[in-house]
Amino acid sequence: MGGNTFGKILTVTTFGESHGKALGCVVDGFPAGIPFDYDFIQSEMDRRRPGANSLGTKRNEKDEIKVLSGVFEGVTTGMPICMILENTDQHSKDYSAIKDLFRPSHADYTYEMKYGIRDYRGGGRSSGRETSSRVAAGALAKLYLKTKGIEIKAGTVQIAGVKAVNCSWDNLVGELRCPDREKEISMIAEIETARLMNNSVGGVIECHITGTPVGLGEPCFDKLSSSLAYAIMSIGACKGFEIGEGFESARMKGSAFNDQMRAEGGNVDFLSNHSGGILGGISNGNEIVFRAAFKPTPSISREQMTVTKNLENTTCLVKGRHDPCIVARAIVVVEAMAALTLMDAYLISEAK
Amino acid sequence: MGGNTFGKILTVTTFGESHGKALGCVVDGFPAGIPFDYDFIQSEMDRRRPGANSLGTKRNEKDEIKVLSGVFEGVTTGMPICMILENTDQHSKDYSAIKDLFRPSHADYTYEMKYGIRDYRGGGRSSGRETSSRVAAGALAKLYLKTKGIEIKAGTVQIAGVKAVNCSWDNLVGELRCPDREKEISMIAEIETARLMNNSVGGVIECHITGTPVGLGEPCFDKLSSSLAYAIMSIGACKGFEIGEGFESARMKGSAFNDQMRAEGGNVDFLSNHSGGILGGISNGNEIVFRAAFKPTPSISREQMTVTKNLENTTCLVKGRHDPCIVARAIVVVEAMAALTLMDAYLISEAK
Amino acid sequence: MGGNTFGKILTVTTFGESHGKALGCVVDGFPAGIPFDYDFIQSEMDRRRPGANSLGTKRNEKDEIKVLSGVFEGVTTGMPICMILENTDQHSKDYSAIKDLFRPSHADYTYEMKYGIRDYRGGGRSSGRETSSRVAAGALAKLYLKTKGIEIKAGTVQIAGVKAVNCSWDNLVGELRCPDREKEISMIAEIETARLMNNSVGGVIECHITGTPVGLGEPCFDKLSSSLAYAIMSIGACKGFEIGEGFESARMKGSAFNDQMRAEGGNVDFLSNHSGGILGGISNGNEIVFRAAFKPTPSISREQMTVTKNLENTTCLVKGRHDPCIVARAIVVVEAMAALTLMDAYLISEAK
Amino acid sequence: MGGNTFGKILTVTTFGESHGKALGCVVDGFPAGIPFDYDFIQSEMDRRRPGANSLGTKRNEKDEIKVLSGVFEGVTTGMPICMILENTDQHSKDYSAIKDLFRPSHADYTYEMKYGIRDYRGGGRSSGRETSSRVAAGALAKLYLKTKGIEIKAGTVQIAGVKAVNCSWDNLVGELRCPDREKEISMIAEIETARLMNNSVGGVIECHITGTPVGLGEPCFDKLSSSLAYAIMSIGACKGFEIGEGFESARMKGSAFNDQMRAEGGNVDFLSNHSGGILGGISNGNEIVFRAAFKPTPSISREQMTVTKNLENTTCLVKGRHDPCIVARAIVVVEAMAALTLMDAYLISEAK
Repeated sequence: MGGNTFGKILTVTTFGESHGKALGCVVDGFPAGIPFDYDFIQSEMDRRRPGANSLGTKRNEKDEIKVLSGVFEGVTTGMPICMILENTDQHSKDYSAIKDLFRPSHADYTYEMKYGIRDYRGGGRSSGRETSSRVAAGALAKLYLKTKGIEIKAGTVQIAGVKAVNCSWDNLVGELRCPDREKEISMIAEIETARLMNNSVGGVIECHITGTPVGLGEPCFDKLSSSLAYAIMSIGACKGFEIGEGFESARMKGSAFNDQMRAEGGNVDFLSNHSGGILGGISNGNEIVFRAAFKPTPSISREQMTVTKNLENTTCLVKGRHDPCIVARAIVVVEAMAALTLMDAYLISEAK
Repeated sequence: MGGNTFGKILTVTTFGESHGKALGCVVDGFPAGIPFDYDFIQSEMDRRRPGANSLGTKRNEKDEIKVLSGVFEGVTTGMPICMILENTDQHSKDYSAIKDLFRPSHADYTYEMKYGIRDYRGGGRSSGRETSSRVAAGALAKLYLKTKGIEIKAGTVQIAGVKAVNCSWDNLVGELRCPDREKEISMIAEIETARLMNNSVGGVIECHITGTPVGLGEPCFDKLSSSLAYAIMSIGACKGFEIGEGFESARMKGSAFNDQMRAEGGNVDFLSNHSGGILGGISNGNEIVFRAAFKPTPSISREQMTVTKNLENTTCLVKGRHDPCIVARAIVVVEAMAALTLMDAYLISEAK
Repeated sequence: MGGNTFGKILTVTTFGESHGKALGCVVDGFPAGIPFDYDFIQSEMDRRRPGANSLGTKRNEKDEIKVLSGVFEGVTTGMPICMILENTDQHSKDYSAIKDLFRPSHADYTYEMKYGIRDYRGGGRSSGRETSSRVAAGALAKLYLKTKGIEIKAGTVQIAGVKAVNCSWDNLVGELRCPDREKEISMIAEIETARLMNNSVGGVIECHITGTPVGLGEPCFDKLSSSLAYAIMSIGACKGFEIGEGFESARMKGSAFNDQMRAEGGNVDFLSNHSGGILGGISNGNEIVFRAAFKPTPSISREQMTVTKNLENTTCLVKGRHDPCIVARAIVVVEAMAALTLMDAYLISEAK
Repeated sequence: MGGNTFGKILTVTTFGESHGKALGCVVDGFPAGIPFDYDFIQSEMDRRRPGANSLGTKRNEKDEIKVLSGVFEGVTTGMPICMILENTDQHSKDYSAIKDLFRPSHADYTYEMKYGIRDYRGGGRSSGRETSSRVAAGALAKLYLKTKGIEIKAGTVQIAGVKAVNCSWDNLVGELRCPDREKEISMIAEIETARLMNNSVGGVIECHITGTPVGLGEPCFDKLSSSLAYAIMSIGACKGFEIGEGFESARMKGSAFNDQMRAEGGNVDFLSNHSGGILGGISNGNEIVFRAAFKPTPSISREQMTVTKNLENTTCLVKGRHDPCIVARAIVVVEAMAALTLMDAYLISEAK
């Protein structure tokens, strides 16, 4: 049970290390007859790669997906779809210096203890690059969801101590896709400052899902909220998840929190959306809103105390090219995981 | 795929409605040879039931578990263990008035839309009483984990706007099991005020897991953090989950967040625990710390706007006996879900 | 992973030992809105119990199912349905003599080795009585399948060396439900002879499933044929499974085996059905026909060589009341497992 | 739920069509630290490909596996292992003539009805070539099992009406790996006759698994026998599965069938093995013996009646190069599926 498969009906199995031959995914349970929009999937991949955004790593990789199966004459066949990315731009020498020690706040230590062996180059499978596979699969899910009128968009609402206040979600642009264009400037400043200081910052991404029908999710253990939490928190560096008012709910009174209802011409309207679109674990037709918190990137060019593989004390300074903030590139990954979760829930709701 | 089964190797299937004949669970994959400590399981159940704590519903139910299978001569046999609770103290008449409308912030609306039918009595399966099954199963898991040196304890760290500040986790007592005994007084005051005002409040529960070996959890989609998020957020009324510094991570710099390491006599020590005990999705041997946010209970004796089953506008005032705050009774449920998650991860780590 | 849950979308979790408090099942993923026909389910249970047929054990048990959850006002709610049977007619004293040895061809030895502990009374969970849970769940599945026009019926086509030859499947009656009423007489004679001789016989059950739409089953690992094999061979004492011509296929030429096709007024007709209704693992609309082989019942009142728990040589003579042939009571179990498999496949095919 | 993943702890996800870019598999849950014996895996692949045996298709393909992930410095890392085969020797033109009709006894009809679209070239995913992915994964499983002392070997015991009688399993050689070298000559004659007559024949493969410890398999639904049935019957063209005496059990008396036991120096010996190594669904330490029946290959160069995609009557003559008997190449596939099943069961048994 390697834990590399996500989903119940629509499943995604990912594989690949940062410096192995290729990364990829196998998407299974995807319905037949959906036009395979290669360009759209590639564009989603492009949102992720460094070089696409200047706030991240100053490194260029071309992530061109290669489709190995499951598509015929431009349409999905119902058969498993394998998409791979061949690794082209790797600098093994960047990492050889740290193959015998554990970088603080990276998975090096836990992988070594758990497996007795790890591919240390570029972080191996713990590399942020692993998310490429998720984005490819998530892009495919977005195509399906679009046919059902479901759309997903995410943006940055916090970097370090700077929070978005006046939010407009209609047109997210820029690298951070921040709904508060004013605050975005301060956010970028925080990131650049961190880069200059050889430090890193974290942030919060908010995601909006519109067009969800009533009834997705299962009442007990597969609540849509818990499935989303499971999906989002599996993204590396994610340390928190909340839906609707989230942790703010704890401060509110019931009279303020409850979303009252009114009927209007055969339709049910909610007078507020503190729930974030999910009631009793099931979507209520309202916009689903959730947030994910990301820790500051572990790799910083500062000396830190750590231990070697032989458990001797040493220090570690991670040279090389890395992100002072991974939030910008995590946005499309958050959307991808949300898409996979929603599509899976949608298919499950059809099975009756 | 009804979503009523939790876990991969150690599985729990729950069933039962608030006003049906019985509630219960079937625990499968539980190893043979573990002494079945009935009294301990019953004591965990007692922590949950109303009447056990005066802050909750002023109603008394005796939840005596009845073991139907899987135990022989006081020891588990490796066969599935079914435990049930027969429902004894129900007041159907309390609910008949609201069978044709949807109570705001309850699952009534979503269940009706999803299934076309719902057992409205006491909230049916959406009732908080459903968690009894989880607590019974979780108690069993705690017994196993104890043999491995793993202990779980949770307590309240926030009620409404009152937060615990000076925390001592050594001896949690009282109804809220708050680690800050001073603040606890204010917390109780908040709850009583809400009760008198026919309102409700929410809160935050924090959980500490000690004794976890290094290596639990899987790197990609079954990160221990995401499995815990999935488990905890499946508890009704839970609107947020965070691990380690959680949402506070977003504000921190990498230089402050990173948990540096030192070796001491063959052991690895972490100089801090901002990660909350999980690195790269895998336990690192440090104490696991997470928090869960709970919304204020939906049922309040105030008039609220809602709609009927026929989608006509109406108002709703939920009379009867209900909690102004469900946090106190959720504590043992949080521990139970954490126990089930940890035990499952433990068994998975043995499969190699 | 106790292996006590069957199915992917429609799941059945069973529990209970022969001499425990109760046996039962939890059915999850069952759609809402289906009328719960208690009498039909009870009648299926009655087909199974000893006393219902004189060819089996001369023992009487009343298996009255008790519904604990998931049904409201006579209709399924979509919530998990728990049905239990309380054990009433047990003779513990019958088994105490053999608690320290392993009865040949029973699961005693393997259970003891695997778990280190076993409930020896009546065979514990290896008892044929365990199938009661399956029959209850299968009956529920039959109700659903009936609404889709799918019907399942099984009958005996072989006992010992006596095979059915001139088969009429229209009206199966009698204890063996044999489609060849002439041969049935010889079959019954075989069974009675075995009883008098303190011996036992085996047999073969054939099952016909009509009304299956085209498209059930998945092409690769979840072929409908392999799902059926998995389900049927999980029935105790089953040693073989074949579909269509089965093992006879091995002897045939392609020119004779291939089921040719003709179109008739917009419908596709198959000119033969050597495939048994499944092509490439997917149902083709034709009648599904499979057979299951059952070994002779292990418990015979003859002295057999075996070993004790302490691995000392001894002999074993299983006194008490037991079946010289379990085939008659396995018929409804075969139908039940087929029903669960078909319903699961049906629901899966809807998820797109 | 596409059904393209096999296994519970050790999982294999396969993908790829006969004429797509590549076929492959992702193996997950494979323990770390096992030396990756590339040559052995390649040799298993070679057993499968046409050209390796002259009894099959007169076509040559070089199936060279390419490892994309999960292996580092020649050892498995515990991360998912992706192995692909790029398709090189395809003759699309061979199939274009039949893209608008359904070949009898092939999956064409069912795929078209289920998906509304199918990759008709070479049978798409229903092609026998799909089994390459299984063989690669199964080879990996064999490497692991070998470290536990478990070995698997299969051979042909029947072709058409010719059955192996005097069997020696010690040294299986030749294309059919028949344990009866005399009968093998007749078997080969049957195949060649069929080829000359533009017809096809079926057969039966027998498999022996030695070194299995006591305790693999789960008592209820995951009996080792039913898991094996599920695995083996998922191989295309398989129409029957039996274990131990199989269908012959039905003819036997209990006194003859029961495997009696004797203790010898602390070990338990079975005086016979009619059970085929599995008791109560759990391995008993004895050799596991099972047989699988394969239908004659559907593709024959004879005119057969069928229908077009537009449901018009037509005839079909499948020209091109194909096997008069697929049994020889199915042998390694049977071993592969058995290996995957045994390894999965082994890992599951460790989880306690």
